[in-house]
Amino acid sequence: MRPRKNQPPRPWISAALLAGLLMTQRLESQNTRPRGRDLGVAPGVFSPGSRNAITDVQGVTVGQVTINEGDSVRTGVTAVLPHGGNLFRERVPAAFHVGNGFGKLLGVTQLGELGELETPILLTCTLCVWKAADAMVEWLLERPGMDRVRSINLLVGETNDGTLNAIRARPVRPEHVRRALENAGTNVEEGSVGAGAGTVAFGWKGGIGTSSRVLPQTLGAWTVGVLVQSNFGGILQIMGAPVGRELGRFSFQRDVETDRGDGSIMIIIATDAPLSDRNLGRLAARSMMGLARTGSFASNGSGDYAIAFSTNTAVRRPFEARRITLEELANEEMSGLFEAVVEATEEAIYNSLLRATTVSGSGRTIEALPIEKVRESC
Amino acid sequence: MRPRKNQPPRPWISAALLAGLLMTQRLESQNTRPRGRDLGVAPGVFSPGSRNAITDVQGVTVGQVTINEGDSVRTGVTAVLPHGGNLFRERVPAAFHVGNGFGKLLGVTQLGELGELETPILLTCTLCVWKAADAMVEWLLERPGMDRVRSINLLVGETNDGTLNAIRARPVRPEHVRRALENAGTNVEEGSVGAGAGTVAFGWKGGIGTSSRVLPQTLGAWTVGVLVQSNFGGILQIMGAPVGRELGRFSFQRDVETDRGDGSIMIIIATDAPLSDRNLGRLAARSMMGLARTGSFASNGSGDYAIAFSTNTAVRRPFEARRITLEELANEEMSGLFEAVVEATEEAIYNSLLRATTVSGSGRTIEALPIEKVRESC
Amino acid sequence: MRPRKNQPPRPWISAALLAGLLMTQRLESQNTRPRGRDLGVAPGVFSPGSRNAITDVQGVTVGQVTINEGDSVRTGVTAVLPHGGNLFRERVPAAFHVGNGFGKLLGVTQLGELGELETPILLTCTLCVWKAADAMVEWLLERPGMDRVRSINLLVGETNDGTLNAIRARPVRPEHVRRALENAGTNVEEGSVGAGAGTVAFGWKGGIGTSSRVLPQTLGAWTVGVLVQSNFGGILQIMGAPVGRELGRFSFQRDVETDRGDGSIMIIIATDAPLSDRNLGRLAARSMMGLARTGSFASNGSGDYAIAFSTNTAVRRPFEARRITLEELANEEMSGLFEAVVEATEEAIYNSLLRATTVSGSGRTIEALPIEKVRESC
Amino acid sequence: MRPRKNQPPRPWISAALLAGLLMTQRLESQNTRPRGRDLGVAPGVFSPGSRNAITDVQGVTVGQVTINEGDSVRTGVTAVLPHGGNLFRERVPAAFHVGNGFGKLLGVTQLGELGELETPILLTCTLCVWKAADAMVEWLLERPGMDRVRSINLLVGETNDGTLNAIRARPVRPEHVRRALENAGTNVEEGSVGAGAGTVAFGWKGGIGTSSRVLPQTLGAWTVGVLVQSNFGGILQIMGAPVGRELGRFSFQRDVETDRGDGSIMIIIATDAPLSDRNLGRLAARSMMGLARTGSFASNGSGDYAIAFSTNTAVRRPFEARRITLEELANEEMSGLFEAVVEATEEAIYNSLLRATTVSGSGRTIEALPIEKVRESC
Repeated sequence: MRPRKNQPPRPWISAALLAGLLMTQRLESQNTRPRGRDLGVAPGVFSPGSRNAITDVQGVTVGQVTINEGDSVRTGVTAVLPHGGNLFRERVPAAFHVGNGFGKLLGVTQLGELGELETPILLTCTLCVWKAADAMVEWLLERPGMDRVRSINLLVGETNDGTLNAIRARPVRPEHVRRALENAGTNVEEGSVGAGAGTVAFGWKGGIGTSSRVLPQTLGAWTVGVLVQSNFGGILQIMGAPVGRELGRFSFQRDVETDRGDGSIMIIIATDAPLSDRNLGRLAARSMMGLARTGSFASNGSGDYAIAFSTNTAVRRPFEARRITLEELANEEMSGLFEAVVEATEEAIYNSLLRATTVSGSGRTIEALPIEKVRESC
Repeated sequence: MRPRKNQPPRPWISAALLAGLLMTQRLESQNTRPRGRDLGVAPGVFSPGSRNAITDVQGVTVGQVTINEGDSVRTGVTAVLPHGGNLFRERVPAAFHVGNGFGKLLGVTQLGELGELETPILLTCTLCVWKAADAMVEWLLERPGMDRVRSINLLVGETNDGTLNAIRARPVRPEHVRRALENAGTNVEEGSVGAGAGTVAFGWKGGIGTSSRVLPQTLGAWTVGVLVQSNFGGILQIMGAPVGRELGRFSFQRDVETDRGDGSIMIIIATDAPLSDRNLGRLAARSMMGLARTGSFASNGSGDYAIAFSTNTAVRRPFEARRITLEELANEEMSGLFEAVVEATEEAIYNSLLRATTVSGSGRTIEALPIEKVRESC
Repeated sequence: MRPRKNQPPRPWISAALLAGLLMTQRLESQNTRPRGRDLGVAPGVFSPGSRNAITDVQGVTVGQVTINEGDSVRTGVTAVLPHGGNLFRERVPAAFHVGNGFGKLLGVTQLGELGELETPILLTCTLCVWKAADAMVEWLLERPGMDRVRSINLLVGETNDGTLNAIRARPVRPEHVRRALENAGTNVEEGSVGAGAGTVAFGWKGGIGTSSRVLPQTLGAWTVGVLVQSNFGGILQIMGAPVGRELGRFSFQRDVETDRGDGSIMIIIATDAPLSDRNLGRLAARSMMGLARTGSFASNGSGDYAIAFSTNTAVRRPFEARRITLEELANEEMSGLFEAVVEATEEAIYNSLLRATTVSGSGRTIEALPIEKVRESC
Repeated sequence: MRPRKNQPPRPWISAALLAGLLMTQRLESQNTRPRGRDLGVAPGVFSPGSRNAITDVQGVTVGQVTINEGDSVRTGVTAVLPHGGNLFRERVPAAFHVGNGFGKLLGVTQLGELGELETPILLTCTLCVWKAADAMVEWLLERPGMDRVRSINLLVGETNDGTLNAIRARPVRPEHVRRALENAGTNVEEGSVGAGAGTVAFGWKGGIGTSSRVLPQTLGAWTVGVLVQSNFGGILQIMGAPVGRELGRFSFQRDVETDRGDGSIMIIIATDAPLSDRNLGRLAARSMMGLARTGSFASNGSGDYAIAFSTNTAVRRPFEARRITLEELANEEMSGLFEAVVEATEEAIYNSLLRATTVSGSGRTIEALPIEKVRESC
């Protein structure tokens, strides 16, 4: 969250944080693994935006902090900011969808009731959500224009990285949350970073992935961007190719007692299409169809959630307005956006797997998905 | 619906109805098109039951009447009966899921509130639902043991066959409904029959399709059966193979004003697993993941619904009981069933397309999906 | 539903229908029972509109047909039309709320998905809903501008008048539905008329009731109108006075096996406030708070539903628009409307009881609520 | 949360905590204000249990810590424990209902998906929920039998005491949460205590209130207990008597810009009736009808939530069970329980107001409801 309009931005970064940030970036830059499109993995009929990322939706920024400490902490924070202004005072319409509710996503009832988002969205580890939320509220209350606010609805989601991460210690600290919020930008690192540092998907290393679609001019030229935190299971298929079975790693394979595809996914959807909160809810629901195409069956123990928001100023909601003038797309205009979010979700998941590097932690090692195998299948 | 226990069944079929029925069966027997498995289209990791049909779930029967009249009536009725007893007095736990609510499915609020089904489920054409429902209530009120009943909650769903069918005339008559209910059996015809007589899916002839899965012994050996009425659009893929694009027929291809994938699907799910209505609702939700894998994106104009019920007598609800003794599966036991319903839904949709024959009506012809193309792709 | 703009209205009434209509009106004019306000029963802090009826919301009309035939038919039809134009082409935003879902209300999933109403709302008897719906669709398809329509979502609700009415015969015929639709006006008869001809509430004769509230200028001067079909039970209280207990007629009094307050209520809410469908859903939910104040506890067997719509042209949705320009009230402006709907619902229920006359049918007599008792209590 | 079965309980209380606890109790014992029944305020037709408290439901305990620090901290913690065993391993069926979702209640999606509660329920101040949740998870992870747990779903609710309390400082600390959990018992203090220390209702001091109902033998003799944290607005009526208007303090009275009845209420419902999670959700929904009877209209800014659980061991869910044998009440048996929860909620709210003492904090004073006025009205 940034200062109000007409005020100069006052980002606060200590030298120590800056050093940590730069180190993270340096580590990331060593990641030479391909994205899906580098391998021809390009699902669907629409084209991505220039970054093929959620930040193709103008104004959206993403901030990530990866927390690797000692042998056992492998977690992090990923923040998604719908715009660069004061989100509490310039609210965006938003909605959520629960594919399977075995998760701890905070803030959903108010989001559903009011149809709007008033803070950034944070992703982190399961048992870290409450600490991360308290850190975000502290940070928000310090922002300009927030000095009289006594109620804020925080959206904080999670997946469970407890295989690699000492999750019971809840290792996320306030400075991690602040850094993620203050250093958000349009470059989105993928793979074993941020809230995806310790996640596992389909038995391979999962993580953060992103993708986007731009509708053709005849359908409105709107952009839909998706960011996922992948940590789920199932029977991996890539654009239909049975990769999981060919690699011999899939749910119900043999050890039915333990491999039932548990895990979770958080899906964040941004669009510049001017949508009502109701139509954003419908958009969020379609992301589960993209998830399905990668081989998920939304296992009992999976927390599969989507949050969708629109950045279009024609549907922006000023905090103190008594009436709101809107220009929304009609229901009939939704179908292209629905296809776009299915495609972008599918590709974002592939990217999260393809870009994720092997990670060891807490005495276990989770390998990266073998690229060669994917290359053969597609 | 059948007579109460301890009473001999009294099926009533007139000679005329019998003749019509036989004719329908004879016509059907001429259908030589393959099912998915004949072509190697066998999605997933679990195996089907002996019929690979919803009637693999013991006690479930299906009755269908195809209504072809003159040049313009191409519709019908498909009835699914959870068991052969009095459904009003021996209720089955049930739930529904709305993938996209652009449809006229009757009876959902009571189903959701009480968590049980008290009648057969009927499928028919969109503008026929009310006539079909009134015919079913008349038939139900005449059954043994129903003489004092003054309230019944009917489940009647639909898809829109108005491309081939004179839907505005609402051509379903009471005798069609009666015949479907009274002649239900375990043999399930697929393709352009019953409520699928006039439907269209992915631009090809759609219709009725069915499939099932039986879990391995270690997962409980439960059966999940699915029956679909396919009438939707999108970008057809068969086990990931881009059949729609290769055949040059898919949504958003060129004429974006008219080809936005509209249409609908009704999905009926039966299982012999002893499930609570809550877990049946979760099962129903997963069927949308099977739908997704065939290329649907749940367009704005699509009514995509699933209804799931359990036939297991350990969860049966006698009408006048004050307490109910149940033996249910725990939440943790659901994951195998979730994968099963995803697989069976996907395969049922393929079967509905593969078995559907070319149909002409109301001045239009909708072609059957070319089998050779599918054979090449799989 | 009326003809499109720029076309002269063409109401069609036969002489026979007209005669029947006039007879109904003459019978009604003999009803000298008081409304609540005549007795000082005026709940809340806001004032009603000039008619103290749902038709205080400009453009809303109500049409009712009472069906009294022989000794056993005591039912009818009540139609509520949001405006006088073509409702299918000029849609109003709308939403529903399920207080308890033991009812047969048709059309809710599409209403919820699209957030709009495309037909009049009909109320009738439980087992009549499907016949009434089929009659309405026939009528709608014949209207000007409807000749190519192949899909319509009908809202038809009910309560169970089977105590007085031969409900199993489903005595509503197409001409009843047509007459209710074609003769709708701003005068709203209350009590044992229309869909309330045979209903029972709190053990006394229930029926149709209506009321309205106009917000003060500082709160926007919006009007909220409510119409109810009362057929439920509980422990009647009138503005807190324990009328039910004083009259010795209330749920759980003695015969706990049979008097558990079953029955239902349909609540139709109209407003000229420019509301989103989401805020209309919130408005609908508050009507249950007005219901609660009359002594209902929403028994297991009660179908308690509310439907709310806005007539304000600033939120109207033209059928073929691709974008919709709206001017909506902000969430913060809802509280006055919430209080208004609670008050108007409470008063509409009192009016339905106070105005209802004693009715005999099917061998039973249900007495009107004794006015003197109410006069004493208030 | 207590040790597992077959293990001796090991409550841990430091001398300091004990001293604080005793002080709280001593302060409370000075509260001589009446409960509702002392004044004849006894809504409904059923009788309360022996304590007229949520703890009349066997096994339920309540722990409260009041935090009064300096001039500005007026808040606290209230914990409700469904039973004395390990709640994570011996789960109770549970459900929630959102009357109005302007609140921060944590944990609802998993509660809804799985239909069960796996922790105590905490109530506290709005901006304290995340800190309180993190404190509870730390405490839970330390319990016996919890050493391998990596995922817990916490239920933490709130109302906004920011008028009297320095809410932006989030003054709840881990020791407060621990003390509330470890010292829970069957005695329930009411009024300005625990999470009700700083709340305001109808313009008067609100707080914690409780009540119960026991059904007659013919209805099953089940107990329903309710605990509320009252912090909402509206037009106070006590058993229908217009107390708010007579005292000249009610919403929409004059200053419509500021007095729109905002605030919130948390309602916790316990029962020993063996209910499914679905029927617990229906029970929770009825509590809003009790709320309505006190004069609430569920204003836009109100977070009105109910959580209901059953303590009956016939519906208990052992953590590792694969099948669960249940004996549940049929739907038809719910109506008495519905009336009971309406009555108990209404009375619990009255108790919260009647027992609340005047509190000053943060430069403001909120007066206790004048008892004499209530005595006159009832």
